[in-house]
Amino acid sequence: MTQTQTRPTAREKLLAAAVQLVREKGYDATSVDSLCENAGVTKGAFFHHFKSKDELAIAATQFWTENAAQLFAKAEYNKFEDPLDQLIGYVDFRLQLVHGSTLPECTCLLGTMVQEKFETSPAIRDACYEGIHFHAAEVGKMIAAAKALHAPHASWNVENLGLYTQAVIQGAFVLAKAKNDVTLAADMILHLRRYIELLFHHAKED
Amino acid sequence: MTQTQTRPTAREKLLAAAVQLVREKGYDATSVDSLCENAGVTKGAFFHHFKSKDELAIAATQFWTENAAQLFAKAEYNKFEDPLDQLIGYVDFRLQLVHGSTLPECTCLLGTMVQEKFETSPAIRDACYEGIHFHAAEVGKMIAAAKALHAPHASWNVENLGLYTQAVIQGAFVLAKAKNDVTLAADMILHLRRYIELLFHHAKED
Repeated sequence: MTQTQTRPTAREKLLAAAVQLVREKGYDATSVDSLCENAGVTKGAFFHHFKSKDELAIAATQFWTENAAQLFAKAEYNKFEDPLDQLIGYVDFRLQLVHGSTLPECTCLLGTMVQEKFETSPAIRDACYEGIHFHAAEVGKMIAAAKALHAPHASWNVENLGLYTQAVIQGAFVLAKAKNDVTLAADMILHLRRYIELLFHHAKED
Repeated sequence: MTQTQTRPTAREKLLAAAVQLVREKGYDATSVDSLCENAGVTKGAFFHHFKSKDELAIAATQFWTENAAQLFAKAEYNKFEDPLDQLIGYVDFRLQLVHGSTLPECTCLLGTMVQEKFETSPAIRDACYEGIHFHAAEVGKMIAAAKALHAPHASWNVENLGLYTQAVIQGAFVLAKAKNDVTLAADMILHLRRYIELLFHHAKED
């Protein structure tokens, strides 16, 4: 949110409600009524903007992905000159986000929703993958630049490592939720940091 | 399942139905009716064995954890002499399980259910963590033995690395579900394999 932003529309309030409630309760447990109540809008307004809860869910994945893109675009790590410093800075920023949040706040709408709906709603599943893949590809740009500079002959694949950063973060959230302890997510993400360091350290030896 | 096993009881059929349906559809979308239908038992039988769907879910986490323990206990990797070979063999066995399965089959009941219920059902959440922690501790035994032999001075923590193996596997499932591609889970787990190799390789240099 920027200071110049105007007041949220009913559509935006419903998107924000979906992000909040689905992360807290899951998708099937989130009713249209509870979405309207949370957003402070009428059911008429809901169906004016969205044909169904599924349509809202898909729009929410885009809303989520755009908000995340803005958050990461303005983060400090982008200012580092060396792309490997940027990449490590990205991981540190993820750690920072985890430390400042409650569990439902810090976890991922896409990863949560896809666990529940991957088999029963291909449209929601694909929308979740689009968002995860978009973010992984942004991280992949830093990885590609860092590899070109520091590990040009390493055998690992850039796109795959980009996806792996997201797999670790998603898995970190699953374990943190199970333990009801947000610091466990940070412990897990620290292993990702060490892995990236080892991959590049190892490349320098070769 | 062993050949000497008797026919499953109504209770066992309901547990197996919960494992199957929750992984496919999620917890809230799985009704008591659909559990009874899948198990081929009456609703009377359901409530004879379980007070509620939540009680079945918690029993299913124990059923799941016990079945997994049996599966891993008889796997080939246990025969390796060197605990580091056992640990790498464990990861290879996880890869083998992924390659031979459909997505709902190869993924984890505990990780799926906890994503949905961590905030709204503390009892289900704790039961999921118990199962994940039990398995992580089994992997932790191999890690502890491998560390004592090959990396006694390494600074990383054994229990944490055990949990990390499970975080990666859970996150691998989330991404594979999103992409609707089971091979992506294998790609992610191969990074875990490389991380373990690098951790121990790095320790030998010190």
